[in-house]
Amino acid sequence: MKKVKIALLGLGNVGRGVWNILKENEEEIMKRSGFKVEVAKVLVRDINKPRGVEVPDGIVTTDFNEILNDDSIKIVVEVMGGIEPAREYMLKSMSRKKQIVTANKMLLATNGDELYKKADEEGVMFNYEASVAGGIPIIQAINESLTGNKIKELYGIVNGTTNFILSKMELENGKFDDVLKLAQEMGYAEADPTSDIEGYDAQYKLAILASLAFGTKIDVSKVYREGITKITDVDMEYAKSFGMVIKLLAIAKDVDGQLELRVHPTMIPETHPLANVYDSFNAVFIKGNAVGDLMFYGRGAGDLPTGSAVVADIISIVRTNIDVDNPISVVKNNLWNKEIMDVANVESKYYIRATVQDRPGVLGEVSAVFGNYEVSMHSVIQKGEIKNKSKVALVLVTHMTTEEKVRKALDELSKLNAVESIENLIRIEEFE
Amino acid sequence: MKKVKIALLGLGNVGRGVWNILKENEEEIMKRSGFKVEVAKVLVRDINKPRGVEVPDGIVTTDFNEILNDDSIKIVVEVMGGIEPAREYMLKSMSRKKQIVTANKMLLATNGDELYKKADEEGVMFNYEASVAGGIPIIQAINESLTGNKIKELYGIVNGTTNFILSKMELENGKFDDVLKLAQEMGYAEADPTSDIEGYDAQYKLAILASLAFGTKIDVSKVYREGITKITDVDMEYAKSFGMVIKLLAIAKDVDGQLELRVHPTMIPETHPLANVYDSFNAVFIKGNAVGDLMFYGRGAGDLPTGSAVVADIISIVRTNIDVDNPISVVKNNLWNKEIMDVANVESKYYIRATVQDRPGVLGEVSAVFGNYEVSMHSVIQKGEIKNKSKVALVLVTHMTTEEKVRKALDELSKLNAVESIENLIRIEEFE
Repeated sequence: MKKVKIALLGLGNVGRGVWNILKENEEEIMKRSGFKVEVAKVLVRDINKPRGVEVPDGIVTTDFNEILNDDSIKIVVEVMGGIEPAREYMLKSMSRKKQIVTANKMLLATNGDELYKKADEEGVMFNYEASVAGGIPIIQAINESLTGNKIKELYGIVNGTTNFILSKMELENGKFDDVLKLAQEMGYAEADPTSDIEGYDAQYKLAILASLAFGTKIDVSKVYREGITKITDVDMEYAKSFGMVIKLLAIAKDVDGQLELRVHPTMIPETHPLANVYDSFNAVFIKGNAVGDLMFYGRGAGDLPTGSAVVADIISIVRTNIDVDNPISVVKNNLWNKEIMDVANVESKYYIRATVQDRPGVLGEVSAVFGNYEVSMHSVIQKGEIKNKSKVALVLVTHMTTEEKVRKALDELSKLNAVESIENLIRIEEFE
Repeated sequence: MKKVKIALLGLGNVGRGVWNILKENEEEIMKRSGFKVEVAKVLVRDINKPRGVEVPDGIVTTDFNEILNDDSIKIVVEVMGGIEPAREYMLKSMSRKKQIVTANKMLLATNGDELYKKADEEGVMFNYEASVAGGIPIIQAINESLTGNKIKELYGIVNGTTNFILSKMELENGKFDDVLKLAQEMGYAEADPTSDIEGYDAQYKLAILASLAFGTKIDVSKVYREGITKITDVDMEYAKSFGMVIKLLAIAKDVDGQLELRVHPTMIPETHPLANVYDSFNAVFIKGNAVGDLMFYGRGAGDLPTGSAVVADIISIVRTNIDVDNPISVVKNNLWNKEIMDVANVESKYYIRATVQDRPGVLGEVSAVFGNYEVSMHSVIQKGEIKNKSKVALVLVTHMTTEEKVRKALDELSKLNAVESIENLIRIEEFE
């Protein structure tokens, strides 16, 4: 049996998952890959901290140089997270011709380019399946299985916390604040949930996915981002009445060579495969010009699912590169130089919910404003309120129009006396 | 730009798809793989037959030896289908150290072992992503992305024709015969639909998937098989009333080292991701001990989706093996030797629909029979018929029990005077 030595940088949640998988599934891995994968070193910050896994004496170290200077260690697995020192350790490891596996989405979304370039220069493999959508093999799918395709569109449910919250709101009629609290109690949401519920986490992941799918550099700050905090049970009810559900989607489209990149709550048809992605599950839906519609679904987080992706990355290096003099990097970045479209030009259908005065002529005034900006209506629902007889709920669904037109119309609308408030605007995606 | 020469065996539906993808997406393939893929020869039976694609003179041939004896052709792509001469051509090509891509499910399910062995002996790659579930990269996922897992369960919707029929029955309240006719008119079902509607096609595909997922030889005749011809609109209605839908599932489970392998119509919860797989789409749902639940969804047939998988297989060879002296076969078959469980021992929940006489004591008699075989009931629905007042429909849903017990109970039940007929038995899967 051939053997390959690796080092883990970090022994937190994901590191423990990797350790446990390599141990528990050792026989499968050996038989299927033809190699025994041996963890020779594990880098930690505090050697005395209890870790919940039994690691033999002499393996754990606090000194990165022990790993860097050990030429028998062929693969460095970065599962420590954060920007530094993860970035420094990976760059140094590549200089010593060590192959890299990482799960670090934040580093990839912000400094990915430097790392990809270094890997290319050094001729080492740089695998990062675990950085997006946990156990779902979406990176390999885009980089390898879909090589024969022009990818046209990509839609992801890539944040488990927000999908858990929206699922509870949809299936159990929960209110946002209550469900967020539940998610925090269950460990699905952090004490400061901003990164998840405001869509930052999804924004990072979309930047990574889109850069691969479209072979171009992505400036993460140019990805339009909107969280789920404004979604109410009222919106959920309207969505249901239209045969739709609300999901936080990360959307990337190639529109005549320009890229549309956005993260926001989206109404989608209840019969679409993404609609049945519930709880903390993730999914990525892709349209390719050859393969057509394709979707990948699975666990987006957790020690074992994420560990599963890390282990797959390790084995992919072991299989294709360890015995080979000139390893082949299958990841090609920055092949094209695509522009990111201004969000004002993005086209969509919109659901708009407003509270207006209940008097003759209001619907006419509202219609006139939308007419001024060439926004035409697919449907209009007006519902009187029981508690307050002077106000009515007005729900509008537009035909396809641009973000710019809708925003201008809403701006003018909010100035009308007849309009008490604009409660929400949710984009609609019908995947046509 | 490095170049690699390939030959296509066959220029039917899939062959044309491959040709068109290599042409239409040439730039993507070159940039992403670093290679130009050139089709040097195309083998056809009749050189004068019009083919719907423009192939330059001198490329098309009816003589396989022109391909076999051309050492510049490194990859042979078999898209002709059928057992012979596809088998002979692939074996001969491997003897000449040509690498193989094939889309031939029937050959793999029946003679796969001989081909895998030959590839191993000759040290050539043997890729067959397109043989199961068209454009869905399920073979790569199992062989590579899930290497770090023990796969415990696999559920596939792997036949587009039957999924189209069941979708129309569910969503548009169609009757089986009418929808089958529509499917034939639309080209989704063949004039003789037996292979699809009786589950043979799904049986082949399950044999291939299970042999990979569980690393063992599968005798296809040992896969239990039942088609969808007995499913009626009445069963669809009952399923809906339980919050379930009916799909033709190909199921493989590792139960304490024994394999459970079966293809049959199955009731599944309407909120499960497989429930939203509609029309002619395919999907494969997998449970791994590390990754947890994972699902892949996409087009299971068609020239371009299947071509997309074939092209991915070509590129995977080009990337990892063309420049390498000792190519690495990533596919390891027959690693374990697992037994296939007798279907009598398979455990499931069951939906049973019968027509019984409407008189006192009948329910007691029926219950007694099930009691004799230790089959306990989860729910019972009895509905009087309007047209025939002497008969009632009786629908039973059992708790978990074995196939053997249910069959014995039904056998005895059918002999009761009170039982007019047993209309249907459908297995229920709740994925717990």
